[in-house]
Amino acid sequence: MQLDSLFTYDSVALNAAGDGVVIVDQTLLPGEERFLTLRDEHEVYEAIAKLRVRGAPAIGIAAAYGLYVASRRAAAEPGFDIANARDEFYRISRYLCSARPTAVNLSAALRRMERRFDSLAARLAFPELLEALHGEAEAIKAEDMAMCRSIAGFGAELISRPGMGILTHCNAGHYAVSRYGTALAPIYLAQSRGMAPRVYVDETRPLMQGARITAFELQKAGVDVTLQCDNMAASLMASGKIDLIFTGCDRVAANGDTANKIGTSALAVLASYYHIPFYILGPTSSIDPTTVSGADIPVEQRGEDEVTELYFRKRIAPEGISVYNPAFDITPASLISGIVTEKGVFRYPYDFSDLKQKDLAL
Amino acid sequence: MQLDSLFTYDSVALNAAGDGVVIVDQTLLPGEERFLTLRDEHEVYEAIAKLRVRGAPAIGIAAAYGLYVASRRAAAEPGFDIANARDEFYRISRYLCSARPTAVNLSAALRRMERRFDSLAARLAFPELLEALHGEAEAIKAEDMAMCRSIAGFGAELISRPGMGILTHCNAGHYAVSRYGTALAPIYLAQSRGMAPRVYVDETRPLMQGARITAFELQKAGVDVTLQCDNMAASLMASGKIDLIFTGCDRVAANGDTANKIGTSALAVLASYYHIPFYILGPTSSIDPTTVSGADIPVEQRGEDEVTELYFRKRIAPEGISVYNPAFDITPASLISGIVTEKGVFRYPYDFSDLKQKDLAL
Repeated sequence: MQLDSLFTYDSVALNAAGDGVVIVDQTLLPGEERFLTLRDEHEVYEAIAKLRVRGAPAIGIAAAYGLYVASRRAAAEPGFDIANARDEFYRISRYLCSARPTAVNLSAALRRMERRFDSLAARLAFPELLEALHGEAEAIKAEDMAMCRSIAGFGAELISRPGMGILTHCNAGHYAVSRYGTALAPIYLAQSRGMAPRVYVDETRPLMQGARITAFELQKAGVDVTLQCDNMAASLMASGKIDLIFTGCDRVAANGDTANKIGTSALAVLASYYHIPFYILGPTSSIDPTTVSGADIPVEQRGEDEVTELYFRKRIAPEGISVYNPAFDITPASLISGIVTEKGVFRYPYDFSDLKQKDLAL
Repeated sequence: MQLDSLFTYDSVALNAAGDGVVIVDQTLLPGEERFLTLRDEHEVYEAIAKLRVRGAPAIGIAAAYGLYVASRRAAAEPGFDIANARDEFYRISRYLCSARPTAVNLSAALRRMERRFDSLAARLAFPELLEALHGEAEAIKAEDMAMCRSIAGFGAELISRPGMGILTHCNAGHYAVSRYGTALAPIYLAQSRGMAPRVYVDETRPLMQGARITAFELQKAGVDVTLQCDNMAASLMASGKIDLIFTGCDRVAANGDTANKIGTSALAVLASYYHIPFYILGPTSSIDPTTVSGADIPVEQRGEDEVTELYFRKRIAPEGISVYNPAFDITPASLISGIVTEKGVFRYPYDFSDLKQKDLAL
């Protein structure tokens, strides 16, 4: 589709030889676009732990490919004992899973690979079993791309006029998934249709994913993009430049309360004050029916140095100062105009009970 | 008073010999507390232009002292012609005024020194005239301190319980004036009375005055202080930690709409949503009766590198990216619970017509 012409590579891919996971080192963006080929479980682990690959879907895909590549490599070692193949496979999977224990897509992708292994181990020879694991990893990626394309379609219907101003926060784009993104996918689709949206990107303190990654990928795709500090969003809304707000999500509770990158809930309150539609975009796998409301979502408090050191390089706060640094906040469902998923757009009051069990995070 | 024991020095002072303006280089805070003695108009100009001394009242005081010190120095030069004294005085004053043309306190303090010069020049010998100028500069500082003490008193009445949580933005404290501050003055007074307020400081992107200066001065005075990124304020309010919001102001329009550091208006909208009182604190000289409403306040757009380079040292955004970087925003009067001045607390709907003409910015 026309949309694909905006991207020159996938964020996560298997190399042609099938023995390496290819990523762009996101810690070096936007200064350098360096491709890395990860060839064993240690390199994949390090890339996930050090945020060289980030974004929950992208991490899941990288881990699935990594588990396949590392298992194939282990099987080719001299002295590999086929009798220990399952133990070795599970050892690698558990190790990769520990790279970032809180990312649900990571453990979900690895569990899915394990189930595939166990369902086929009794009836396939090891080379065929490896091929099936390869196919499973590719399926995880293909489903991610289909999910993003579907969100793009539903979200693009909200971009109803050329040149609309859209505010976004953090990075829910190309680099967070395998290709199109979630919150950014409809923007790319609108761009490919000649709608020329004007996108305003919050820099997203403390780790600057908006400035470093979102501004970079939108600029690279030819989208009209402007960067601002997080505290300038109200001024932008007051000036009439913003028609829509699109953000991603980390977890959606059964009532629609949504956890996302710190700063998201402030945008929703401001959007309500300035009468601007505020949308959450993400896969139905982010909806967690076991979480009743936002009050039940645990919010990770992160390290003080993220706030006191500017991107870990230059200290800007007094020694010994206390720091408040939650990674996420909770946006009340009543402030969310809609939740755009690959199954369609949900509206307040939220009711996800018609979704099939397999679509939901469990 | 007890309040004074919290401060070990004034932000701006004349040295004992009367020939130098003593400041702390605020660009080095919090890493280093380096005192500078500025001995001529060039050193004073450079310190103001490079933000070594910042905060509108502090700049006005530094310029008044600087004009006195530089005039005294010029008069001591061999070959100084008393017939040219007024030209020389005005030359220095105009030069200092150009260091930051937009700061109203800078031009107001220098104009006041000029009026004093002209009112006495005909009847005083030059040494006595210099002494009168010294006295005028000291009066400007003394009035600043009295104004801040009065704001401290009115503002402290709002801090009605021990341990209240107070959120502030940017720096309207010790380093912005000569000693007590405006938004921070009631916090210092409450601290000196044993009320132990818990203060939450927005880091204040892009230039980090909250992290670098406010967090530093509160910590130094023994106040319980916590630093957060600007986009974390909503999360703090939702958590119930914030009882009051105190910020300074750059200009208050006749209807109460208030220009202050970018990010202030977002706090006011969030405070309204979370039912938290939001107060502006500043001198009546910041109220401009010639400005009808916020729509009439021009907002300075500042350089792109403030946003794309982290404190001007490390680039974090793509080359060529567009940037939105207003220095201030406008808080609608209807969102301001009160405006605390040295004359008392004004409440919405705002009417400043009882204030004497001399108290108002003109």
